[in-house]
Amino acid sequence: MDEDEGALPKKQDFSEWYNELLWRAEIMDVRYPVKGLYVWFPYGFAIRKFVYGRLRELLDRDHQETLFPLLIPEQEFMKEAEHIKGFENEVYLVTHGGTTPLDVKLALRPTSETAIYPMYALWVRSHADLPLKLYQIVNTFRYETKQTRPLIRLREITSFMESHTVHATWDEAEAQVEYEIGLTREFYDGLCIPTTVSKRPDWDKFPGADYTIAVDAIMPNGKTLQIGTVHHLGEHFSRTFSIKYEDKNGDQKLANQTCYGISERCIAALLSMHGDDKGLILPPVAAPVQVVIVPITIGKRHEDVMVAAQNLQQALTATGFRVKLDARDMRPGAKYYWWELRGVPLRLELGPRDLDAKKVMAVKRTGEKTSIDLATAPDGVTRVLAEITDAIRTKAEEHTRSHLCAATTMDALDSALNEGKVAVVHWCKDRACGDAIEEKTTASVLGTDVRSPYVHDSDGACIVCGKPGKATLIGRTY
Amino acid sequence: MDEDEGALPKKQDFSEWYNELLWRAEIMDVRYPVKGLYVWFPYGFAIRKFVYGRLRELLDRDHQETLFPLLIPEQEFMKEAEHIKGFENEVYLVTHGGTTPLDVKLALRPTSETAIYPMYALWVRSHADLPLKLYQIVNTFRYETKQTRPLIRLREITSFMESHTVHATWDEAEAQVEYEIGLTREFYDGLCIPTTVSKRPDWDKFPGADYTIAVDAIMPNGKTLQIGTVHHLGEHFSRTFSIKYEDKNGDQKLANQTCYGISERCIAALLSMHGDDKGLILPPVAAPVQVVIVPITIGKRHEDVMVAAQNLQQALTATGFRVKLDARDMRPGAKYYWWELRGVPLRLELGPRDLDAKKVMAVKRTGEKTSIDLATAPDGVTRVLAEITDAIRTKAEEHTRSHLCAATTMDALDSALNEGKVAVVHWCKDRACGDAIEEKTTASVLGTDVRSPYVHDSDGACIVCGKPGKATLIGRTY
Repeated sequence: MDEDEGALPKKQDFSEWYNELLWRAEIMDVRYPVKGLYVWFPYGFAIRKFVYGRLRELLDRDHQETLFPLLIPEQEFMKEAEHIKGFENEVYLVTHGGTTPLDVKLALRPTSETAIYPMYALWVRSHADLPLKLYQIVNTFRYETKQTRPLIRLREITSFMESHTVHATWDEAEAQVEYEIGLTREFYDGLCIPTTVSKRPDWDKFPGADYTIAVDAIMPNGKTLQIGTVHHLGEHFSRTFSIKYEDKNGDQKLANQTCYGISERCIAALLSMHGDDKGLILPPVAAPVQVVIVPITIGKRHEDVMVAAQNLQQALTATGFRVKLDARDMRPGAKYYWWELRGVPLRLELGPRDLDAKKVMAVKRTGEKTSIDLATAPDGVTRVLAEITDAIRTKAEEHTRSHLCAATTMDALDSALNEGKVAVVHWCKDRACGDAIEEKTTASVLGTDVRSPYVHDSDGACIVCGKPGKATLIGRTY
Repeated sequence: MDEDEGALPKKQDFSEWYNELLWRAEIMDVRYPVKGLYVWFPYGFAIRKFVYGRLRELLDRDHQETLFPLLIPEQEFMKEAEHIKGFENEVYLVTHGGTTPLDVKLALRPTSETAIYPMYALWVRSHADLPLKLYQIVNTFRYETKQTRPLIRLREITSFMESHTVHATWDEAEAQVEYEIGLTREFYDGLCIPTTVSKRPDWDKFPGADYTIAVDAIMPNGKTLQIGTVHHLGEHFSRTFSIKYEDKNGDQKLANQTCYGISERCIAALLSMHGDDKGLILPPVAAPVQVVIVPITIGKRHEDVMVAAQNLQQALTATGFRVKLDARDMRPGAKYYWWELRGVPLRLELGPRDLDAKKVMAVKRTGEKTSIDLATAPDGVTRVLAEITDAIRTKAEEHTRSHLCAATTMDALDSALNEGKVAVVHWCKDRACGDAIEEKTTASVLGTDVRSPYVHDSDGACIVCGKPGKATLIGRTY
């Protein structure tokens, strides 16, 4: 965990900036000796703790947390035909226990439908058992053959939140999908991450779903990152796993289901969206250290300043802020650099002159200075942190809005994508036209039924065939 | 999650009681279709949340939380000779990614020394990097061939806390071992679980350790359950993985290490130690529901009672208690049964007569009734919950004390063990004498250097050879 003193790559070189920042800001170490597996540094893990703490709070309103096994017997895993088609090339298989070959091979869950639903079949008996709404936060595994990237494309997803709900009717499951889209938007809004929500085209839906609603973020380089998906499973899995309930008339009915996932990509989006050339910028809600106090001590006032700094730390900690007093024997400038790199939202500089004026200098990581009265520092810090959150959100919204643009011809679409934008076109929902768009642009049809403050769900002529079409997002994806 | 109305087996039939209770109190479902893998019910998982929350609080005083990959390349795993000897028959191996055989087989961590220490070798450079104290709470895997039991002997340990520290000297590592024994005792004291701490005999230490200090609980049937271990690793692993630091004189030195683990056996001990014939008894600190309010409504006072019950719930929740108001349409007796089974420490019964008297009846799960003034209910509940914690702790201490006894002859030892006790003998620490004890009694030499308020670390003649010996615990183990 050495401090490397060289300059960070510029954020406009996003890929280099991202890789270098993960290491330098102590988020993840990529030197673990297996491709696609990474190590969380304690600082990165602390960010994860606050982000997932918030996710748990949101889910606990309506779901209960639980935990199912990692290992899925091959025969259960192979039961749902569409599902297995989606995963069979990606699943890790355990074949040996010690030196003994296993009778039944065990899959490492790539996602847990086939682990959970055999149990749901035992648990659900009557309409009175419904709805059933559980979630877990677990490690899952995909044997990725594409290039892996920390937090974005991994072979061990370390922090997969997966929700699995069971309902009496298709409509109730649809309402749950809507509820969970709302939760996801609220979650990302809390992290100041603007999202575009859309309905994935049929060929890109979850294997075994009626339909998939996906949540994307537009990354600094204009590529989209899928950071959440909600799936209406209809009766696909309940038929396969025999999840049935007795309704009020005594009839046996197949249940309807949803599943819903958010992975550590939420942290990739958080770090990427807000950071700048100096390093991370963390919204206070996700910052392991929200306020750093740097004492500026010269000669004989050292003791005074240190006592005042400790009092300040105490007052802020008592108010509930996460505060660090940086009393290390280093130049103030080196400390500024250190904490800026790590994205601490607010730095308080306290020197003899501030002390005399009963003030402390507040330097926002988002780039402004202001003065706070020492006597009412907790109020001042509350106010300034709220301003920082606003500034972070405004900047992210501006980024997202400026990276969305309409395109009415294939050429315009191609240029928009080449300029690093996500385009809104009209599309007739015909697969052939979708394929034509994807082949011509090497981009993806993200989806229709777009929900974004910057995109209107308009009608128009399909960009390929000219037939009536609907507003559709096209983007280059991670 | 049906409610089965039959009576619970008596606690004196401990094994049946335990298995039945896990299911009936909704802790774990054992019907997952792979041996040794179990499913946490939401209620069980909520207990886990509070127990592990407390463990995190204790560790966060001095350690940082982190997360390393599950999969360990076979060649790293095979590096430490003693270590691999201890685990080679128990490790699950991943051999395929999709249909592709892997170039390098991957072990599912049975414990993470060989995942973490190659990274520590990169991170530790100088004495200034030390001490390094990290922990993680993860799933680990052992291909157990013995009989598996939920929370006790599993193939997927779902909740393994493992701490891994690095120090400059052997003495500093020894001090860390002592510190971590202290943490463990504090953790279990908070759960009202008395422990006996002892130094395991050499043949039973962790593979690759200088020595192992273990923490045991005496279960209801007199068997001991190992619920924590702290290992002094000396230079065993630092030599293998080349974890070196430059000391103040510029010399390269091998680091000294410790590791330390607590698994979900802590929850097995919690449930087993305190429960009774009616079900669980949870100390308030670990209870998902600390107080249940049961309104006793008859005829026209229904509305009054319900409003008072809601106000009471609000007042207690605002004070920070975890409170449930049970307004289900069921007989009060059925509700009592339901919450007693689930171990809720305090039940408040509120009826019209209580309301008139401005009181509420408080029924302790530990078996006493008392009256609480409604006007100062939060204070009353605080007091009564503290009394419940005391009663739970006292009963567990009494159990532990009465299950320890001295034995000075092999016959006395054998009878003590057959009576379901843990015996204290004198032993010369010679392996041959240890083997003689274990063969004759089919029990285990738990350890020497015993720390327990009920055992004196005395000298005496070895129970086998008569040479000078030290107080030693002998018990039948899980």
